[in-house]
Order: sequence, then structure tokens, then C-alpha cells
Amino acid sequence: MITPSTLQKIGAIVGTENLSTAQEDLITYAYDGTPLFVQKPDAVVTPQTKEHVAALVRLANEERFAIVPRGAGTGLSGGSIPTEGSIVLLMNHWNKILEIDEENLTATVEPGVITSQLHTAVERLGLFYPPDPGSMNISTIGGNVAENSGGLRGLKYGVTKNYVMGLEVVLPNGAIITCGGKTVKDVAGYNLKDFFIGSEGTLGIFTKIILKLIPKPETSKTMVAYFTSRAEAAKTVSAIIAQKIIPATVEFLDNTTINCVEDFAHLGLPRDMDALLLLEVDGHPAVVEEEARKVVDVCREHNCAQIVVAQTAEEALKLKTARRAAFSALARSRPTTILEDVTVPRSEIARMLEIIDATAKKFNVQIGTFGHFGDGNLHPTCLTDERDKEELHRVEQAYEVIFEECVRLGGTITGEHGTGIAKRKFLHLVTGEESITAMRTIKTALDPNSVLNPGKVFTV
Amino acid sequence: MITPSTLQKIGAIVGTENLSTAQEDLITYAYDGTPLFVQKPDAVVTPQTKEHVAALVRLANEERFAIVPRGAGTGLSGGSIPTEGSIVLLMNHWNKILEIDEENLTATVEPGVITSQLHTAVERLGLFYPPDPGSMNISTIGGNVAENSGGLRGLKYGVTKNYVMGLEVVLPNGAIITCGGKTVKDVAGYNLKDFFIGSEGTLGIFTKIILKLIPKPETSKTMVAYFTSRAEAAKTVSAIIAQKIIPATVEFLDNTTINCVEDFAHLGLPRDMDALLLLEVDGHPAVVEEEARKVVDVCREHNCAQIVVAQTAEEALKLKTARRAAFSALARSRPTTILEDVTVPRSEIARMLEIIDATAKKFNVQIGTFGHFGDGNLHPTCLTDERDKEELHRVEQAYEVIFEECVRLGGTITGEHGTGIAKRKFLHLVTGEESITAMRTIKTALDPNSVLNPGKVFTV
Repeated sequence: MITPSTLQKIGAIVGTENLSTAQEDLITYAYDGTPLFVQKPDAVVTPQTKEHVAALVRLANEERFAIVPRGAGTGLSGGSIPTEGSIVLLMNHWNKILEIDEENLTATVEPGVITSQLHTAVERLGLFYPPDPGSMNISTIGGNVAENSGGLRGLKYGVTKNYVMGLEVVLPNGAIITCGGKTVKDVAGYNLKDFFIGSEGTLGIFTKIILKLIPKPETSKTMVAYFTSRAEAAKTVSAIIAQKIIPATVEFLDNTTINCVEDFAHLGLPRDMDALLLLEVDGHPAVVEEEARKVVDVCREHNCAQIVVAQTAEEALKLKTARRAAFSALARSRPTTILEDVTVPRSEIARMLEIIDATAKKFNVQIGTFGHFGDGNLHPTCLTDERDKEELHRVEQAYEVIFEECVRLGGTITGEHGTGIAKRKFLHLVTGEESITAMRTIKTALDPNSVLNPGKVFTV
Repeated sequence: MITPSTLQKIGAIVGTENLSTAQEDLITYAYDGTPLFVQKPDAVVTPQTKEHVAALVRLANEERFAIVPRGAGTGLSGGSIPTEGSIVLLMNHWNKILEIDEENLTATVEPGVITSQLHTAVERLGLFYPPDPGSMNISTIGGNVAENSGGLRGLKYGVTKNYVMGLEVVLPNGAIITCGGKTVKDVAGYNLKDFFIGSEGTLGIFTKIILKLIPKPETSKTMVAYFTSRAEAAKTVSAIIAQKIIPATVEFLDNTTINCVEDFAHLGLPRDMDALLLLEVDGHPAVVEEEARKVVDVCREHNCAQIVVAQTAEEALKLKTARRAAFSALARSRPTTILEDVTVPRSEIARMLEIIDATAKKFNVQIGTFGHFGDGNLHPTCLTDERDKEELHRVEQAYEVIFEECVRLGGTITGEHGTGIAKRKFLHLVTGEESITAMRTIKTALDPNSVLNPGKVFTV
């Protein structure tokens, strides 16, 4: 419990108007986008400057409280769930796009800028910021960097870390440093920048971010193909890539998800299909035309039951709606939705899907799977009710099997959602204990008093 | 000095046939590609298995000697120069391409595989490994990863780190870990993989590397444009990118370099030109045709004096010869060649070139500059004689000014060669002291006895 005298010192740093201990605030920030985890912070703090952030970190070391940085709280691994005796450090009001540099193709932003607002701002100039996590209409760039978020365009364009050129970071000792900048290449010293990316607020707090932009693809073509066999759908994706085509998007919905989306959005999806693939190719018009034709051919060669090619932007948007609605559609069918994030080498997708289905059956739980087929990144989503402890136990058992099998196939327990609290106990499956020892050694060396987001990624 | 009893233990680990203390070996491995630095190791060791490597690292901790891992020794910042009382750990005989996985688009290699041999192997299958450092015909992939090497295709395709998916690493405590793998996305735990990349053998020794491959561009078009003003050449590059064209290659030679190349290779280069730009666009034939046409137009609009477009692969190769010969051509004119690696935001290239020229004049030293214009990565190359201490002092003064000014323009002291020994004393200019403290904290935590390549990146 943070003492009143410490709270007073916090208020003295940020101004009392930027400090709240009101129950309604503590309850609001007790949650993030991850189910099953709830913990109220002792206070909610809204710093106004990087010097505020640095002073808070120094105070945390002196008075031994924890700081949990938070963007929009859309994370799916509990990375922004408060720990006991912590303050939540709100960063989502740091929402200015400071500069878009068209000559160097960079955007400099505050960490609270909303992802889709950055998209809009740069696309207006013919530029492109590819990372597009599912929550992009509310998620912040700072949160995206902290979790190294992915999205639907990962296969061709990569994930958040591929677009972070520079960071201003407040370290656990209160020092404010910059790593990287507007240079395309920089190998001076250790690569701290990439180490901070995805460190979930445990190693530093971002106060400024320089992002790489690329020219916006001139055009794109969106297609939806339906398959009576998900194994055929998986083979189709490999065959498309074997043709040296890297689509911008290769998304998948299974039969459960198709039906939930149809119940929810009434798009006229064929309910009997085993797999829906949403495919998008983008780039130069001549290339897009040719690649789209080849994609259609490959789908047909692999016995797709039906394929729809969008002829207009509106039609493309309509086709994408099914995929964007997947999570919401699944979420409404039961009280609790647990979204997982297993990722396997692309060649193992069909096997992984079989394993997910067999495991769901074995433990008698309901799992719908959708995800980024091109990346091998699947979101097996369990529809359950957290009040039913017995069912919840079966859900946990099922996921444990899914994680183990995924790693056995050369995969990872999280492709884009992070480790946070939700997956820390499974981390060793992927990395081994000796890697965790190395990670913990670094964390302890940089943050000996464990003031920054303790208990995330691994137990302290 | 490593004692005979320790040497005996080393021999017992790797076999005496894999341990040499012969003077001719110690002298050979006293150098790498960096001028001015020479230090004989106490022994040269050729491990045969990862268990050998791990056992050597454990022994080094017990008996307190240093291990300096070495690929082909082509590094340009002294990263593989031995420290006193060290063994050189040769890895260049670990030269097997273990697998090329066409479905997942990965190559799994031993660290001693030569970069250009990997190029050949994957291109035969229609695949592409873009990083192409200047020394690619002798450099090893392990060395490329340890230095995060760049090359001529950085602007469009990125550098080595953008293609490393997985690493097997022997840690400073002798543990063998793997980070990453064949999955396109992985955010489980801290991003150790990217932290090891570019760590110059100070944090771990790579024993296996998984690389990302991409489809090979279908075709390319190579052009050389000459300018009477390097400022116009710089503006041309910005104008090309403003047209949303990202060339695969944008290389630059200044007048001094043009003349050295002409003296050396007799290519018929116009000796009076202030700048040569080598430009290459690649991809789909329709796109290449269109982009090449636009590039020619932009060059002409920016008063290029002459432009040559290669009509055949042979012509393209000939045009590229001038750039590939730059370093060798400069190197033969004086006994000592000191190649630097400053990198600025692209918008600052013209300013940086002016500064380099003015600084060379001020200190009365001879500098020829070439480099990767698209990346803002310049190689101001000083032609000098290390036996002339007075001149060498002026060279050092000149580089100090160049480094300071480069950082003032938002740049870095090294874009692709690493920090090593050569640039460690300038590191603080780029990163600040507090970042170096963080780096040193991590190094000390992971390697408390400083057994892995001590004294590189920063002083211990």
C-alpha cells in the first residue's frame, strides 16, 4: 500500500490535479483487455512531461512502489494490469503527432497517439505505416511498441519493431535516454532500442517514438476464398508463397468463427464452410492485377468452393468486415472470451489447427480459431464463463496442451500479444529456463528495486 | 598470459589438434580488417561442436581468460582484434548451410557460412537473402550478425538484423540457448535475439543462425548518373524517394574516389565529375521499367551531366564495378586507409559532405568519400600513412570533428561497421553516457568475469 506521505510526494511532482485515488478511477484501471485479471492500483497518475516521468521513477526507487505504464489498455496478456501497491501511469493523453518528415520518411510521435490516427495522418501524404493491430482504433503507438504488436499486414510488412527507428526512454533509474533516431542504419553500441521494444513497460517508459514510414502501396485487391477443408486452405497459402507472391494479408476464419460472425453481422457467409481465407495483394497496379489472378488460380487448384474478388473499395471493405468482426462476434456468444495467440512455422498450420480442434474436443471446451495464416499466427479463442470454475479449469488444461504442442512444432506461445501476466508461466516452454535466467538477470541489473511493471513477462 | 596448465585444459576440451600457439598463427590472428590495431592472442582455438564452445566459456570463467570469437576477420571496427591474454575462437570452419526451407522461406546455417555462398545457394531456388556487405565474398554470416552488417541494398531491404529469425547462442555462463526460430512473429519474453545481433561477440557466441529469405526480385535495372555538383546528386536522391520510389541501391562516389577508381580500373569514368550515383531499381518487370524511367527523368531534372542505363546484365555488372572497386582503389594510393562509417538522416547528406570536405581541408588530410546515399551512410576514407605520427594525429583530429558534426546533424558514428575498439571512445557522442551505463550494466550482469570479447563496444 502506497502511504499518504508518498502520495503527497507524487502529487508534488505531477500536480494534485494529475493524481487520483478516487475509487471510480482505481476500478477503471484495474482491468485491461485481458480477461480473468483484476487488480486495483493505489493511484492513477497523469504525468505532463518527461521530467515528471523521470521524477516519478526516481521516487519509486526511493519509496519502493511500482509503476505500471498504460496506453489504451487494450493489451491481451495483462501487461497493463496493476500490481499490488502500484500507480498506473497514464500515457494516452500524450497524443500529439510531433512531425511527419516526408524527406526522411519518418513520423515522430508521442506514445499516446492512437494507431489508426497515425494511419490517417500519414496516408493523407501518400505514406504508409503498416502495423495494424486488431485494436488499432483505440490502441496507442506506445502500447504497440511496448508489446511489439502485430496485425493483419505482418507477413509482407512486418510488425511494430520493424518500424521503430528511435525511442526516448525513461530508464528504471530515472535517466532519460534516446536510442536510434532518423538514420536508416545505426550500429553504435548495443541495440537497446530493439530490446526495449516488446519489453512490456518493465525496462523503460517511452516518452517519444520515431517511426519509419514507407510509400503507400498504389492499389490493392481483396479476395475471399471459402474451403470445405481447412487443410486445403493451409496448403493454398503455402502454394501462393511458393509462387513467390507475398500477400499483404492472409487471414483465416474457421467454421465456428464463420458462424459466430454470421450470427452477429448477417453478411451472408456460407455457414457450412470449414475455412474462410481473406487475401489481399497490394502494390503497383500491374503487379496487383497479375498477383490477384495467380492467387485466384491457386485457390481454384486447391479446391476452393467459392472465391469472391472485390471489384470496388466498398466491396473490399465488406469482405474485410468478416475478419475484423471475428473477435467481437465470438465474444458475444458466452460471458468470457479467452483469446490466445499461438504461432507456428507456416508449414505447420494445418497440423496446429488439427491439434487445436482435437484438444478442444478432448477437454470439452468451445474454441473458435481465426488469425493470420500467412504468419502462422492463430488465435484459438475459447468461449467460456469465468464463473464456472470447473469449466475454466478444463479451458486452462486445453490451452496448456495447445501451448506445448505448438512449441513442439517449432512455434511460440505468443506471436503478437506479449507474455504479460497471462503467459509468463508458459514462457519456459518456448525459451527454456536458461533464457529466462538471462532475461531476469538483465531486468534485475537495470531495475534492482523492481519499480517498473514488476511481475510481467516473468515472475520476479 | 594464459598459463600452460590452462592451455592444457583447453586442449583437453577441443583436442590438441584444434589448439595452436604457433607464432605464425598468433601473428595471423593479431589483425582484422581494421587498420592501426594489432594484438597477438595467446592461442588460436578451433572448436568442433557447440559443447566445445560452451566448455571453453565455462573454463574461461574458471581460469579467467578472454575469448575473442572470429569469423573471417573482415570487420572494420576492430571487433575481432584479440585482447591481451585471450584465445581467438575460430568459427569460419563451421561453414555448412544446414537447410533451406522453401515453404517457410528460411535458411538455417552455421555461423561460418560465407555470405556470398549463401546468396548463390538461395538464388538458385529463386529466393533472396538481401544483406550484401562489401566483404561478402569472404565475410561470414556469423560475423555479419555479430556486427549487424549492412551493404548496398539497405535502403529497400534493410540490414542483417532484418533477416535474422533465430539464433542458437552460447551465453557468457556457458549455457546454450535458442532465441526465435522459424515463426514469422514471436514476442515471448524479452527480445534477446535482436539484442545479441550487433553485440560484437561480447554477449554470446552464435552456433546456429536461422535467416529469413524473400522471393528473388524478378528483374532489375542499373543506372549510373554523373553530376557536376554533389549537392545536386543528394537532392536527386531525395527527389527520387519523394516520387515514392525506393531503389534497391543508391550508391555514391565523390570526385576523389572516381579518380582513384579510374586510376585503378580504367573504366573510362569522367574524371571531372563531382559525384557518381549508382542506382538500381528491382522487382516486377513492369514496375522496374516505370521506375527506371522516372529515375532517369528525376536525374535529368536535377542537372545530371550524363546518365547511362545498362541494357544487359553484363553492362549492369560493369556499372557496378566502379562502386565495388571504390575501397580497393582508394586503398592503393597511400600505405594506410582508414575507412569511416558516419550516417546521417538522408536530408542531411549534402551538409555532411560539405563538412567532410571542409574538415579534410582544415586538417590537411586526404579524404575520399563513397557510400550508401539512400541510407545516409557515408564512408569518408582517409588515405594516410600510419608511420607518420604527425599526419596520423591530424587524421584523428579530422575524424573527431566529423563524428561530432555528424551527431549534431542527428546522425551516428557507425551505420554498419560496428563500434568495436575503433569507435568506442566516440560512442558517448551518439548514445550519451547514461545509455553506455545501461549497456555496461547489462554486459556486467551477463558476463561478470568479462570473458567474452572484453573491451569491445565500450571500455570495461
